[in-house]
Amino acid sequence: MDLSSEEYARHAHRLADWIAAYLRDVGDYDVLPSVHPGAIRAQLPKSPPAAAESLDDIIADIDRIVMPGATHWNHPGFLAYFANTASVPGILGEMITAALNLNGMLWRTSPVATELEQVVTDWLRQLFGMGEGWFGMITDTASVSTMYALAAARERDPALGIRQRGMAGRGDLPRLRVYCSEHAHSSVDKAAMTLGLGLENVVHVASDDAFRLRPEMLTRAIHADRAQGFRPMAVVATAGTTSMTSVDPIEEIAAICQRESLWLHVDAAYGGSALAVPEMRPLFSGLGRADSLVVNPHKWLFTPMDCSVLFTRQPKVLRRAFSLVPEYLTTTEGDDALNYMDYGLQLGRRFRALKLWMVVRAFGADGIAERIRAHCALAQRFAELVRAEGEGWSVCAPVPFSTVCFRHVPAGETDEDEIASHNATIMARVNESGEVFISHTKLGEQYVLRVAIGNLRTTSATLDRAWELLRQAAH
Amino acid sequence: MDLSSEEYARHAHRLADWIAAYLRDVGDYDVLPSVHPGAIRAQLPKSPPAAAESLDDIIADIDRIVMPGATHWNHPGFLAYFANTASVPGILGEMITAALNLNGMLWRTSPVATELEQVVTDWLRQLFGMGEGWFGMITDTASVSTMYALAAARERDPALGIRQRGMAGRGDLPRLRVYCSEHAHSSVDKAAMTLGLGLENVVHVASDDAFRLRPEMLTRAIHADRAQGFRPMAVVATAGTTSMTSVDPIEEIAAICQRESLWLHVDAAYGGSALAVPEMRPLFSGLGRADSLVVNPHKWLFTPMDCSVLFTRQPKVLRRAFSLVPEYLTTTEGDDALNYMDYGLQLGRRFRALKLWMVVRAFGADGIAERIRAHCALAQRFAELVRAEGEGWSVCAPVPFSTVCFRHVPAGETDEDEIASHNATIMARVNESGEVFISHTKLGEQYVLRVAIGNLRTTSATLDRAWELLRQAAH
Repeated sequence: MDLSSEEYARHAHRLADWIAAYLRDVGDYDVLPSVHPGAIRAQLPKSPPAAAESLDDIIADIDRIVMPGATHWNHPGFLAYFANTASVPGILGEMITAALNLNGMLWRTSPVATELEQVVTDWLRQLFGMGEGWFGMITDTASVSTMYALAAARERDPALGIRQRGMAGRGDLPRLRVYCSEHAHSSVDKAAMTLGLGLENVVHVASDDAFRLRPEMLTRAIHADRAQGFRPMAVVATAGTTSMTSVDPIEEIAAICQRESLWLHVDAAYGGSALAVPEMRPLFSGLGRADSLVVNPHKWLFTPMDCSVLFTRQPKVLRRAFSLVPEYLTTTEGDDALNYMDYGLQLGRRFRALKLWMVVRAFGADGIAERIRAHCALAQRFAELVRAEGEGWSVCAPVPFSTVCFRHVPAGETDEDEIASHNATIMARVNESGEVFISHTKLGEQYVLRVAIGNLRTTSATLDRAWELLRQAAH
Repeated sequence: MDLSSEEYARHAHRLADWIAAYLRDVGDYDVLPSVHPGAIRAQLPKSPPAAAESLDDIIADIDRIVMPGATHWNHPGFLAYFANTASVPGILGEMITAALNLNGMLWRTSPVATELEQVVTDWLRQLFGMGEGWFGMITDTASVSTMYALAAARERDPALGIRQRGMAGRGDLPRLRVYCSEHAHSSVDKAAMTLGLGLENVVHVASDDAFRLRPEMLTRAIHADRAQGFRPMAVVATAGTTSMTSVDPIEEIAAICQRESLWLHVDAAYGGSALAVPEMRPLFSGLGRADSLVVNPHKWLFTPMDCSVLFTRQPKVLRRAFSLVPEYLTTTEGDDALNYMDYGLQLGRRFRALKLWMVVRAFGADGIAERIRAHCALAQRFAELVRAEGEGWSVCAPVPFSTVCFRHVPAGETDEDEIASHNATIMARVNESGEVFISHTKLGEQYVLRVAIGNLRTTSATLDRAWELLRQAAH
């Protein structure tokens, strides 16, 4: 027997008020909690309770234990990594998803989960100005989406027989290679580890001054590998690298992939949301020639964690990489009923399409474009503040989207270690304020700071304050 | 700008009442919706709206479009696959998780997400009567947990160099083999496909009359493979197979794994929840010698999708299989701060620990055990109804947990195709009633029906009615 629906209602109403207050006041919290590792564990009983506890007691612990240990991703001053937003329609969608608890492994196990996923991913395709012929599915993370894409690439030539025979101990198989820029996300490397391709078979191609993969270096790497007996398999182009959000030249990479018969996967986990802005689409020119693409609505499309969308123009190949139907999951609906479990490793599938559908409707295509535009404008404005300041401050990379890489070099300082340490100190001081949270990265040997704008609450006032804190911290 | 917190509150209160009514009345719905493939898609606009729509309109479509297309996993008559429950504390937990939108990739990105995950997985360890020395982490699905376990097994011998060098085209590598029973879940095969081990290198070992892996056949398969130059790598023992919930003899398998230096992974995705019942633990004897174990709280531990727990006694090996820290994710907290991203492919990590913590507290260890016991008793009672009936009805497998495999054989019928067709008809008729939803499987050549009890609303009255429908359908 579950707790009663009356008890649900009583606490859900209470939490609705609690969450409303949280969403209203989140800017008053410190972005980063002031806890030391182990402090939260120390507050919790070492063992589970034998007897049932009341929901009143449990929910009281949300305020007492959870909130003081939370990093507030909803905070307007969250400017680290890629800032995101759990928007109101998305949070409401999750409320329904949890209650219905549908599992969309098969069409039959919840037709609406499957069909809404088909519809909303096709809506995204249109929102992004992509042509026809793309199959869309929702996964949990870009790491999984990219791994799926590379699994499909590995399966593309069935003659290799990897699905059936695997790769270990087969002298007949060529060494397979994956190419990406030196600034590609670690998920490409992790996918290669997982798939048994090996870290050293991910070739990190050099980039140009604007941190974009250099096509001629890609061609050279492919040819050198072929000459040495390797077999090039796939290229991952990034549209919005994690460090500095650079965009690889997809059009030229696509031409190389076509010429060399390689699978082209585009990692636009963050940047892809900018496809919703028509005037930004030229950045992604050539996308229509890719074999697969990942965009994460839980990054910059206002959807709560987790929600990643994998598009592919080769669904049959993806299916070949993953389909396997045991007797207890055989169905009788025929080909009209899509069974998403056939397209991935994961069998259980939450009803993630619902929140995405609610977000797209609640903002509308124009409203989404407007918000993305506004974030990009905030980033340009922040970059301008840094540039205008001078005094050792500089913007260290182009700003195609909503993320700015910058740093401060004390007068006369040329030692990169000293500069890194100086900027790390600036970052630590700024983050200790509790008002903003920024992160860092390296551009080659340069240690730089990052301000990433992606939360719907972030305004020019937030960034003015961040800039004030940064300038103070530099002295 | 997001929608306002006032707008959130207004709709959250409305949904709280809507969900409360749903949880109260879910038994009045048809378990399976009466829609044809494509019918839901046809109701939805082909393109996303340009302008924002009101939440009132969007939420109205939940009743209009979503509910008529939903399979009601919450229904007391949901007896298919593995029935589960989104319990009240779990649904409330998801409400908070969505609003906070924490990402537990690093300790720093939300200390409470990490530490609560450490605590609640350790609580589960104790709830399950497991000894010390287990590392616990939460993933989305058992498919991923098992894939992680086998990735760790593959990484166990670093001399193979698979992480770095991969497997393709390396004549120096032995062919790696994974063993499981012929009744193991397809996720073992899918993990092998994903990891590049190959379907044919999953050896499905014969089982005994009670559908349990035969240890002597395992030993024989291992020796035969070694003689042929294969390298045995891991064994997956199942505690609660998907078809008939049989439990492999873990103690004997563990002894073989120790002798042969193989990784032992135990797939207890469903059955593992029964470890909460002290008198059922002998079924799992030998578990303490396993290297890894998966249990899915979203199956039989009353937690909403998705929530799978992977335990391992070899966290360093798991970490070696997956850790990779790019500059932008380096941290300074030191070893006291666990970064869960180092233990898996997935970088983004929802705050899943919260709902599980709330479920364990709201029911308590004794309350959980009592509910699992009750489900097992219901299954025994149902099996007794079938056995007592005679007239061609029989129970086709032992019932160690809460799932019953059974079928009806018309008098004099011996043709397995005819019997299968007859039982498929029974199933279709019963499922058309809308009152219950059962599924089927095959035990060897026998087509059988399955009743799986796992929903907190299912009572003896539900099963009496299911049995009445079954008997009617057989005539």
